[in-house]
Amino acid sequence: MLNNVYIIGAGETKFGELWDKSLRNLAVEAGLKAIENAGIYSRDIDAIYGANGLAGTINEQENIGALIADFSGLSMEGIPALRVEASTASGAAAVREAYLSIKSGEYDLVVVGGVEKMTDIHGSGILEKMSSILDREWEAFFGATPAAMAALIARKYMNDFNVEKEALSMFSVNDHLNASKNPDAQYRNKLTVEQAMDSIPVADPLNMMDCSPVSDGAAAIVLASENFVKKNKKEGVKILSSAVAEDYLSVGSRESIYTLKSTRLAAEKAFKKAGIKRDDISFMEVHDSFSIYGLLELEDLGFAEKGKAKNLVYDDIKLNGRLPVNPSGGLKAKGDPYGAVGIGQVVDAYKQLMEKAGERQIKDARYALLHNMAGTGASSVVHILGE
Amino acid sequence: MLNNVYIIGAGETKFGELWDKSLRNLAVEAGLKAIENAGIYSRDIDAIYGANGLAGTINEQENIGALIADFSGLSMEGIPALRVEASTASGAAAVREAYLSIKSGEYDLVVVGGVEKMTDIHGSGILEKMSSILDREWEAFFGATPAAMAALIARKYMNDFNVEKEALSMFSVNDHLNASKNPDAQYRNKLTVEQAMDSIPVADPLNMMDCSPVSDGAAAIVLASENFVKKNKKEGVKILSSAVAEDYLSVGSRESIYTLKSTRLAAEKAFKKAGIKRDDISFMEVHDSFSIYGLLELEDLGFAEKGKAKNLVYDDIKLNGRLPVNPSGGLKAKGDPYGAVGIGQVVDAYKQLMEKAGERQIKDARYALLHNMAGTGASSVVHILGE
Repeated sequence: MLNNVYIIGAGETKFGELWDKSLRNLAVEAGLKAIENAGIYSRDIDAIYGANGLAGTINEQENIGALIADFSGLSMEGIPALRVEASTASGAAAVREAYLSIKSGEYDLVVVGGVEKMTDIHGSGILEKMSSILDREWEAFFGATPAAMAALIARKYMNDFNVEKEALSMFSVNDHLNASKNPDAQYRNKLTVEQAMDSIPVADPLNMMDCSPVSDGAAAIVLASENFVKKNKKEGVKILSSAVAEDYLSVGSRESIYTLKSTRLAAEKAFKKAGIKRDDISFMEVHDSFSIYGLLELEDLGFAEKGKAKNLVYDDIKLNGRLPVNPSGGLKAKGDPYGAVGIGQVVDAYKQLMEKAGERQIKDARYALLHNMAGTGASSVVHILGE
Repeated sequence: MLNNVYIIGAGETKFGELWDKSLRNLAVEAGLKAIENAGIYSRDIDAIYGANGLAGTINEQENIGALIADFSGLSMEGIPALRVEASTASGAAAVREAYLSIKSGEYDLVVVGGVEKMTDIHGSGILEKMSSILDREWEAFFGATPAAMAALIARKYMNDFNVEKEALSMFSVNDHLNASKNPDAQYRNKLTVEQAMDSIPVADPLNMMDCSPVSDGAAAIVLASENFVKKNKKEGVKILSSAVAEDYLSVGSRESIYTLKSTRLAAEKAFKKAGIKRDDISFMEVHDSFSIYGLLELEDLGFAEKGKAKNLVYDDIKLNGRLPVNPSGGLKAKGDPYGAVGIGQVVDAYKQLMEKAGERQIKDARYALLHNMAGTGASSVVHILGE
């Protein structure tokens, strides 16, 4: 039975503060780019999977699947559409659902689109909304924000493993350097380690340059069954594996606050299914909503011992390093539109693996690992893509 | 290849104004009932699909999949969990995703749980939140509520097909009569047609007895692969087909405001896949958030000509009639907790098909059709269950 799943097209909007575009404009722009890139007819599309984190609370709009189907002109055909929500991991969770739907034999051609419009709220109002990704009753109710939780984790991690603040800053420096070569990125300025370390405090020890921004943006991909790819002679990137795992929602319930157990479990499953080793990975995109998570993820994905990621952040993770991380610019510099992030990672990895990443192109890129995480690590989704 | 999918357990909370129970309490109560009913070990569960419509906006809690996994004690095992959102059709959309995930061969045993906690908002504040299921920019922004849209549709329908208000009221009368026999129902009082017609106006021509209530509640089911069922000698109800279709989000964009195109398309697909005829259906549960939709659904599901459902609502739809509709009490009387509705329909149909529906038991029930709809008909999900 031919049931491999391929990415045959990808597109995204610029990420940033996009005052002149609405939620629906963004979703449709990305979707149409992906469809055009795939060179398919919209009448052949079997289903739409939408990903979104916060439109209910920010934009007072639920029913996002139907919204996207409607404004992309696809509801005329009655095409199935729904939304997947797994907080900040909604994007990759939607990719996984679409992947399973093709594997089930039910669909041959599926569009997966993620969108977030976060600047529709004034000033600090967004913080309250963003905190809905935490445990409302045990964390957010007491005033904790995502940054505050990340700061708690960072403080204990730095103390227990003797990690200097500079190591965290280096993660952001790498993101900005890569984003300077990505036309879709929100911030394209290069950042020195001094600038990163001297930026204004957000939640000590994290400062502004440790925190991903508030972003608008959308990203979309087209997934196809092996049958469709063969029949239509399409080129594509194969999804070698897709895995997801959960941890406790509130950080205080976890065995170790600086161990992302969901990331560990998802990575283990993903490597087992893909049948490749960590050494085979050409590059990674990881969910660095805060720089501390970048370091923890290098460890919990299995690329460094706990407490040792600091050894990778100066050279190894660079675009021309041993293990390039976030060639797209990552959440810090490419941007962090919640529901679009996990799909934006796929868009970028697709370009790399198709050797169409321009200035950012990694030589001989064969296997990519993509990591998208919900909140402080309650869920992690890992995809491994290959040839 | 054995890839049929079975329902092997079901459970739900009472639906109603449940002031003493929170979102997470409700979700866990229903989930544990379903697991107990299925007689399975929690360590055997491969994934959780959560369904919820409005928790982001009402309860300021996103990440519902992780929340449910956490508080049901299943996140210890790192079990995958996510939330499916398709507005008021979230429940059935989650059932469909879980069904596909088992068909894909990735999972053998999946829990699907839907929950909504709508009374956490004072008074009429809920109306604003409920309106997020409409098109925010083209409907809700201008003050339209779900009831207002239903009233517009009802007025034109009654005019064009010469339908009396009494026919709408009869739909609610049938719901209340059935709910009087359902211990989980929100309203167990019987309703006379005079009471229904004399209730206070909400949006003319609809009055209070044409509108489903604001409800808290949760429902859960356990789905299993054919392999699991055979290996563990489980009894269950087979999902014969699962289908979904979209229409335009805003009513004004549609070809006909009283034709639920998404319902038509989903029903066509569902019957085709199930390989049975409309005459074979033993009973139906339909999404009557407003009585007018009950009539439209009888027509668009294919059980009456357009404008002729009025001929069915006096006798045929009764529990002992030719085509029993809403033996559970329907949305009007059993209750309407958005994300739980579509799964609650499955819970009830499971009881009927397993001949455990008590006072409400339909004789020789073999095939059930379940219809769950998003908003004013932007999405419809149809499941056909059988032996």
